[in-house]
Order: sequence, then structure tokens, then C-alpha cells
Amino acid sequence: MHSHPKTLFDFPFSGNGYKIRLALTQLGLPFQYRVIDLLAGDQQTPEFMALAPMGQVPVLQLEDGTALWESNAILFWLADGTFLMPENRLDRARIVQWMNFEQSNIDKVLGRTRFLKRYPHVMETQQRDWDGWHMTGNRALGVMEGRLREHNWMVGDAYSAADICLYGYVHTANEGGFDLSRYPAVCTWLDRVQRRPDHIAITAHG
Amino acid sequence: MHSHPKTLFDFPFSGNGYKIRLALTQLGLPFQYRVIDLLAGDQQTPEFMALAPMGQVPVLQLEDGTALWESNAILFWLADGTFLMPENRLDRARIVQWMNFEQSNIDKVLGRTRFLKRYPHVMETQQRDWDGWHMTGNRALGVMEGRLREHNWMVGDAYSAADICLYGYVHTANEGGFDLSRYPAVCTWLDRVQRRPDHIAITAHG
Repeated sequence: MHSHPKTLFDFPFSGNGYKIRLALTQLGLPFQYRVIDLLAGDQQTPEFMALAPMGQVPVLQLEDGTALWESNAILFWLADGTFLMPENRLDRARIVQWMNFEQSNIDKVLGRTRFLKRYPHVMETQQRDWDGWHMTGNRALGVMEGRLREHNWMVGDAYSAADICLYGYVHTANEGGFDLSRYPAVCTWLDRVQRRPDHIAITAHG
Repeated sequence: MHSHPKTLFDFPFSGNGYKIRLALTQLGLPFQYRVIDLLAGDQQTPEFMALAPMGQVPVLQLEDGTALWESNAILFWLADGTFLMPENRLDRARIVQWMNFEQSNIDKVLGRTRFLKRYPHVMETQQRDWDGWHMTGNRALGVMEGRLREHNWMVGDAYSAADICLYGYVHTANEGGFDLSRYPAVCTWLDRVQRRPDHIAITAHG
């Protein structure tokens, strides 16, 4: 038997936490919601670091006490054995491919620029930082555009954990200064994701 | 039936390519080796970008023409169904957890500093870049130290794809200016990994 989700530790603004809220909702799994206030430094308390050694949200704690960290690993765990995870070996590797792509090129770029536009005081930045992020982010969005020009979904022919993973920060790219209208197939895919049953907005919390 | 590996496209200095060379060797899978010279810009040719849209090595092409990219996704695909991948759902998620951890904190930090020490002309850097990398890298090594003080391997109680993934750049951390002697449990684990059957060095190519 598997243990069930109990508590999601999250910062409400986080697109990484949103991936997990969205997956939990679409899988019909109830959970308690605990806010970790990143601006107040809650992520650096010994209690929280005992759950998540890198001091990052989200963390999903299970009923047996197990703490899952790294949003894509939590998403993988939730999806495994459900309609959100393909059974085919190659398609499972494609899920991991897009998760790693997202980690380097979307989360650390689209997610970061959005965070810094909203909370500019948390980190000193230079123009060259923004130039680098915009170059990498637009390159990544171009790669997604290429995929979505010919396919409805990121992996195989069905909605999966890869779509949830990428949707998390891509749908808010404009908040970080990106112009999504340059990527029409991405925009059509965003609409498609939003029309899935039990979709929730990033502003919907536990 | 699954298609078999045919050609690994790689830059010999790459720790990401090394993960794949090591896994292929330990799984007893033969492969052809094709050098993509990153310093000469081979990764930006239309032929290569048709295989790997982000223009990065390694790429593993299968006999049926399928191109796998993102080193951790290739590693996941190779490991899936073998002794390198746990069967337990939670342990599989832990593999994905360490792969995402590695992507953000090891590859982009220990891998990058090593590359820039060897090839300083490829990118302009500032002291604040190096300070940030050393802070993140030492934090990540501290997290690994915590795990390895109490366990022999990164996931469960057996050597797995997670160990290969992390070993790739951790064992060369000193080349990027990190002092591994501060992490004795990590050093003991490096020895343990090196004693696995069919281990090869990062300098061993196809």
C-alpha cells in the first residue's frame, strides 16, 4: 500500500507549488495547506529544513511522515500509476526530459524573472542577468512552440505530468517580461490545458 | 520491443555525456561515439539541432532513429527496467528528485565552474558569479553529505541511476574550485561508486 498525501507546504505565489496543487486537484486527492512565507525566511527554520534540506518549497508530506521535495519529483510520484503518466518506457523518459528542460530553462528563467518583477528587493540583478534570462527563456519557448505546432500535448497524444510541469510557469511568462503572443502554438496549448477537467488557477490555494 | 542505442553524440569533456557512457558500459550496451565539438559550434548546426532542439550534448540516438536528449532523461530511459532503477514508486520519485537537484545545483554549478576553469574564454564572468556558484555548490554538497553520512547510496540501499547522475560532476568538483575534503561521507561514496563492476573513468570515451 502507498501512503497518501497529507500536507502541502507551499508559498502561494510559487508556480512550483501550483504544479502540485493542480495535480492533487485533478487526481482528486485532498490535502492540508501550510504556507511557508519565503519573504519572512520560513524556509530556513530547522523544522522546515528537516523536511527539505535545500530549504525550498513545495514539500509534500505523506501520512506516514515521508517528505517529498523538488516539485518535479513530487509531480512524478503523484502521476506514477495514474492517467498523468504514460505507460510506455520512451514516453516516461520524455516526461523526465521535459522536467529537466523545465528545471533549467523555465523554472530558473521564467519563474525567476516573474519572482523578481514581483519581489525586486530579494536579489540584486544587473542588465546582463535579464538579457541572459530573456535569451534562454525565448529559446526554450521556441522549442516548445516547435513541439506544439505538430502535437496537442508535450508527450505522446494525451495530457500528462509534462503538461502540468510546463504550464506552471509558462502561462505566467508575461509577468516576467516575456511576450507569449510570439508563440501561437504555445498559446493554443495553454487554452487546451485550461479546458481540462478540474483545472484550477494559480491563485487557487488549498 | 524496445529500440536499442546506436550512437552517442557527446563532447568528451562533458560530465553529462559521461553519465551516459558510464550507464551504457555498466548495462553492457554497445554504442557508436560521435564527437560534437562545442568549442567549434558543432552543436548549432541544423543537423544537430534537428536531433536536440536546445543544441546540447549528450544525445543518444536509437536504432529506429529516435533521439533522446537531456542527460538525465537518457539516463532514466537506459535505467528503466534494469538494476539501475528501483521498482518501488517512492524510490523512483527519489531518483527524479536527485536528478532535478543535480540539474539545478550540481550540473549548473559544479559542472559550469569546471567548464569555465578549463575554457575561460567561452563566457565572461564576474566575482559575484563565482561567489554564487560556490555558495550553491557547497550547500548542495552539504545536502549530499547529510544523506551519505547515514546511507551507502543516494536512493534506497543499492547503487542506482541517482548515483551515476550525481557522480558525473561531483567527482570532478575540485576542478571547479571546490574542496571535497570538507565532505568525508561524499568522498567515501565516490570510492564506493568507483569500485562498482565495469566502472569507467570520465576520460574513457566510446
